Amino acid sequence: MRRSGLLLLSVPCEYGGIGASWIDIFGAVRELAQVDSSLAHLFAFQHLQIGSILLYASPEQQASLLRGTVEQGWFWGNALNPRDLRTHLTADGAGFCLDGIKSFCSGARDSDRLLVSTQDARGGFHITALPTVREGITVLDDWDNMGQRQTDSGTVTFERVPVAQHEVLGPPGPFGTRASLRACLAQTVLGMIYLGIAQGAREQAIAFTREQSRPWPGSGVETALEDAFIQQHYGEFHVALAGAEALSERALARLQAAWDEGDKLGAEGRGEAAVAIATFKVAAVKAGLDIATRLFDVTGARATHARYGFDRYWRNLRTHSLHDPVDYKLKELGCFILTGRYPVHGFYS
Amino acid sequence: MRRSGLLLLSVPCEYGGIGASWIDIFGAVRELAQVDSSLAHLFAFQHLQIGSILLYASPEQQASLLRGTVEQGWFWGNALNPRDLRTHLTADGAGFCLDGIKSFCSGARDSDRLLVSTQDARGGFHITALPTVREGITVLDDWDNMGQRQTDSGTVTFERVPVAQHEVLGPPGPFGTRASLRACLAQTVLGMIYLGIAQGAREQAIAFTREQSRPWPGSGVETALEDAFIQQHYGEFHVALAGAEALSERALARLQAAWDEGDKLGAEGRGEAAVAIATFKVAAVKAGLDIATRLFDVTGARATHARYGFDRYWRNLRTHSLHDPVDYKLKELGCFILTGRYPVHGFYS
Amino acid sequence: MRRSGLLLLSVPCEYGGIGASWIDIFGAVRELAQVDSSLAHLFAFQHLQIGSILLYASPEQQASLLRGTVEQGWFWGNALNPRDLRTHLTADGAGFCLDGIKSFCSGARDSDRLLVSTQDARGGFHITALPTVREGITVLDDWDNMGQRQTDSGTVTFERVPVAQHEVLGPPGPFGTRASLRACLAQTVLGMIYLGIAQGAREQAIAFTREQSRPWPGSGVETALEDAFIQQHYGEFHVALAGAEALSERALARLQAAWDEGDKLGAEGRGEAAVAIATFKVAAVKAGLDIATRLFDVTGARATHARYGFDRYWRNLRTHSLHDPVDYKLKELGCFILTGRYPVHGFYS
Amino acid sequence: MRRSGLLLLSVPCEYGGIGASWIDIFGAVRELAQVDSSLAHLFAFQHLQIGSILLYASPEQQASLLRGTVEQGWFWGNALNPRDLRTHLTADGAGFCLDGIKSFCSGARDSDRLLVSTQDARGGFHITALPTVREGITVLDDWDNMGQRQTDSGTVTFERVPVAQHEVLGPPGPFGTRASLRACLAQTVLGMIYLGIAQGAREQAIAFTREQSRPWPGSGVETALEDAFIQQHYGEFHVALAGAEALSERALARLQAAWDEGDKLGAEGRGEAAVAIATFKVAAVKAGLDIATRLFDVTGARATHARYGFDRYWRNLRTHSLHDPVDYKLKELGCFILTGRYPVHGFYS
Repeated sequence: MRRSGLLLLSVPCEYGGIGASWIDIFGAVRELAQVDSSLAHLFAFQHLQIGSILLYASPEQQASLLRGTVEQGWFWGNALNPRDLRTHLTADGAGFCLDGIKSFCSGARDSDRLLVSTQDARGGFHITALPTVREGITVLDDWDNMGQRQTDSGTVTFERVPVAQHEVLGPPGPFGTRASLRACLAQTVLGMIYLGIAQGAREQAIAFTREQSRPWPGSGVETALEDAFIQQHYGEFHVALAGAEALSERALARLQAAWDEGDKLGAEGRGEAAVAIATFKVAAVKAGLDIATRLFDVTGARATHARYGFDRYWRNLRTHSLHDPVDYKLKELGCFILTGRYPVHGFYS
Repeated sequence: MRRSGLLLLSVPCEYGGIGASWIDIFGAVRELAQVDSSLAHLFAFQHLQIGSILLYASPEQQASLLRGTVEQGWFWGNALNPRDLRTHLTADGAGFCLDGIKSFCSGARDSDRLLVSTQDARGGFHITALPTVREGITVLDDWDNMGQRQTDSGTVTFERVPVAQHEVLGPPGPFGTRASLRACLAQTVLGMIYLGIAQGAREQAIAFTREQSRPWPGSGVETALEDAFIQQHYGEFHVALAGAEALSERALARLQAAWDEGDKLGAEGRGEAAVAIATFKVAAVKAGLDIATRLFDVTGARATHARYGFDRYWRNLRTHSLHDPVDYKLKELGCFILTGRYPVHGFYS
Repeated sequence: MRRSGLLLLSVPCEYGGIGASWIDIFGAVRELAQVDSSLAHLFAFQHLQIGSILLYASPEQQASLLRGTVEQGWFWGNALNPRDLRTHLTADGAGFCLDGIKSFCSGARDSDRLLVSTQDARGGFHITALPTVREGITVLDDWDNMGQRQTDSGTVTFERVPVAQHEVLGPPGPFGTRASLRACLAQTVLGMIYLGIAQGAREQAIAFTREQSRPWPGSGVETALEDAFIQQHYGEFHVALAGAEALSERALARLQAAWDEGDKLGAEGRGEAAVAIATFKVAAVKAGLDIATRLFDVTGARATHARYGFDRYWRNLRTHSLHDPVDYKLKELGCFILTGRYPVHGFYS
Repeated sequence: MRRSGLLLLSVPCEYGGIGASWIDIFGAVRELAQVDSSLAHLFAFQHLQIGSILLYASPEQQASLLRGTVEQGWFWGNALNPRDLRTHLTADGAGFCLDGIKSFCSGARDSDRLLVSTQDARGGFHITALPTVREGITVLDDWDNMGQRQTDSGTVTFERVPVAQHEVLGPPGPFGTRASLRACLAQTVLGMIYLGIAQGAREQAIAFTREQSRPWPGSGVETALEDAFIQQHYGEFHVALAGAEALSERALARLQAAWDEGDKLGAEGRGEAAVAIATFKVAAVKAGLDIATRLFDVTGARATHARYGFDRYWRNLRTHSLHDPVDYKLKELGCFILTGRYPVHGFYS
């Protein structure tokens, strides 16, 4: 992937990158996820970190970090889990000292650089950009979960890690309307991976049904393709996936429009993007989990053989879909519908 | 409605009509259906008949019938139910004689003109355009169903009705790829009305929850708006409806594109429109029936009072959604997904 | 119904009644509801009031009220809606004076006696048993709702209604573990009516499919009975209804056992009954709403004709199922499963 | 397990076994499946083979095979897959010769004896009981599927395997009303394992939610136990599982009653058992797949760690639930409801 140049898609042209639109970048995420959702996850997180730099970092920091990304081919890992409050930043001479621990750090293991979220003594929240090899940083090889297994989303520990002033991102930093688009990017990453997994599952199922499934003795048909119930399942898969796809297009258009507004982005542009993304994400996870389970009803017992690995769709999607609860996404949407108030900015909304 | 000029939306400008796009016409159908789905049904069927004339009739017939529509303000009724095979056309002198009976004739009661489908002795299928007042035609006042009550979708009988040669539509007549778009128009009418009903139900529910619903004693909240489960229901309504809406936009775009191809329309353009419309229609009926039932979970027992008439959403949608079985639409879609073969042209596909 | 003697089923033999078990009484409720859910509602509410007297009233009050019921053939109406706090009881000479208003008073219109809940100045909650013809009591004819239309569940007003000391039920009155079984009775009434409606809908649908439905042209079968999707719907109806039925048997057994414990009833016996009843009720409403909607998918468009009145299943069940929110029943069950704590006694749990 | 004596539960006392009822045996299957569904599968299949001997074998064969089971502690493997028609029995001297291959042979690997289904040259279907070590029998170690991994449900090959006359079971053999109870036993095995898996998943989820889950930041509650949506999920799990449990009790009672009728078993007793078992099985698989997926919504992202292995519930259930299609079970039930005709005897019905 490093050699493909795809890691530079989101870097603006002025820094030597490709300057692709988010619509194109997320299209690539979805296509990768159809085949390998762990790889898609790592790929998407590279761009999520770059997007975060574009939103949080000062012009000088952007120039430095993004030129470095282009020239050195940096792969960015994530240590930004905002629910894990165990890292602390303390003043230390001219700079700072970072201590603590972060869980669910996707891509940290093979990374060159990390974005790390941390809190200072007064509760201030900061994002720092650090070389992964910096002394005191240890990336643990402890990701051993049932899905998204190749994402190495394990733990990173920080022990008296020196942090220079310029390594703390900002101004503007992680607050403000525009900066809050990072949550929109992150939620879109999730949704596009869910959608890609679901599409991949559907494609593999179709191929299996066509080539290997046998009709049930009582079905009265010659081939599994003609089975009324198998057709019905596929019809339902199609309607659900087509809906999620159509909603993804709306969401990407809203996200791109909000991004393109730059500093003029207001509550409405941000809010409409957030709502469209949440809507799409819920549709994608619902369609995806259903298809990942029912794909076996349209392929049959022989499709459970380990050689096909068809359980990976469910394992990957189920794992990844727990990033933040879909129940609260729905609640947020319902609240918006009822009150007309956009979701409050946060790291998940 | 006759006075609004809206009945001429689909008549091309060359005949004195408004020449609106199908996208705009169906947008109007949906908006009407939010408020009154029977009226929307009659309105849409006017345009379905005009669309049928544009697809089936010869240039001379089009000129005559559409000019008449503009100049006389004809409202067109439907007697085209292709599953009801009880009408027969027999040669009679220079013309024909029509006998028999048709059920589910929406809009026939107040119509000026009717499109009537019929079979000849050799099994040939024909569409005739007749004045409703023609001798031998009797429109019965026998529509007494649980929903779409104002559509007067009752029975029409034909007893030795004289039909002139030029009143039998065509060439091209009702077959051929372009002519088969009539089924696409008819299915889109259904889907847009379902979607409008669902949207109307949602809007009324929101207003009721806001203004009248009281929180459940055990809920721990001050207003029904803050109830977690009520928010969840609305969130689910939103995701389902947004999906159906997004699919409706895709379907309308496909339909318009296919229409605009004129005689050059091929299997792919027609097939993609049919698939997009079927997908949208299934999503709309599913979302709609769910919302029409659950709207009471978000409004409460007092919303069952007859003064609100909130049961009409379910009654109208449930009645109209039985036009042709959603089970077979899903089967058709599944078959397409599995085989890549477009639905076979018919009066329902 | 008055003449059938069925109104005395729940009156113990010692007072001249039939002394039937709750299992038998609720069996009769369910069977009535299959045919007429309003009648079943009124019938069940007679026994709910009698059960309330058996739980709340002193031995002398029981003797007087139940002998009166037997000898005079009293029909009991309900004015016990505990969410409606608009009635007030004030001391007045040797007795009291009752003022205010009660909504959702099922059966009050044709009743001879009423149970009325009310609050005194210190917030004390009391149940009074009064003749419906008592001066100051007015039963309004204002029930005009979309379902359970013949239950006359309208408003009753009280204007300076004299209430004697002995007309206030108790001791023991409406509190205490045994008295709390009234909520169990009331919830069982609801569940049994939902189940009966669902069973009635299924039976009517089966008869229609057998006798009148036509197979869909594309189905490839000779009769609707052989249609794979129609069979599938019925299979799903069966599984859901059989589950609700099996749960109803468990619930009735638990309820009867709790009832039979008399004053020795403890938290566990009461709690297990409440949980079993809640479980059954949720299953019944879910199965019922689904069947009441999908019955049209297995019968077809012609089944929407008003002469069949098949929409009544949905209207009756939808109306009645809003008595208290199913969302909170599920929450209560989940809470029990997680914590092992039985639902807190109340008028809905 | 061999040492526990549990392998003799189904052997009648007259042969030195325990003579337990099917109700007790299947109760044990369910409890085992809560903890280890592969072990439960092997355990259940031992009793399915013994049950098959009791149904198919002559009195002399029963005496010999069941005494051997008691005295030698035989574990019985399954090579009876009736959809796999690749084994053939040919006359060979005084006996026969068995050739071919069987897939999905649960428990064959560690077995002492096998029941093998096979066809003769005239299409006759026979069941043979053979020592697994018989020359020409090879049990392959090729079961490598995503679930039920410890069941070793791989392939067995037969190459010129000598079969004596008395090793072919019968009379009565595998046909006739009583013999057809084998399908009822097999379907009950499946359902009880599904139910056990679902119950096990629920128990593990409860423990995790109680001990380890953290409330979502926006939830406004102190512990995950109080989260309204988590309670709702558990409420839904409970209603679905309680329904499946109640249906399992009905099914076991019907099965035992049919078994106890012995040779007097008629169409009704057999049919009612088959319908009750099918109903229960469908409810169990539906509840189970839902709980196995949603258990993560009530436990959270940390529950995906491999140390918990919570994906095994879904993998095991998903794999095992493909034994025969649930779609066709529903169809069969719907057909029964509509026509009153019991399912046709077969190896799956």
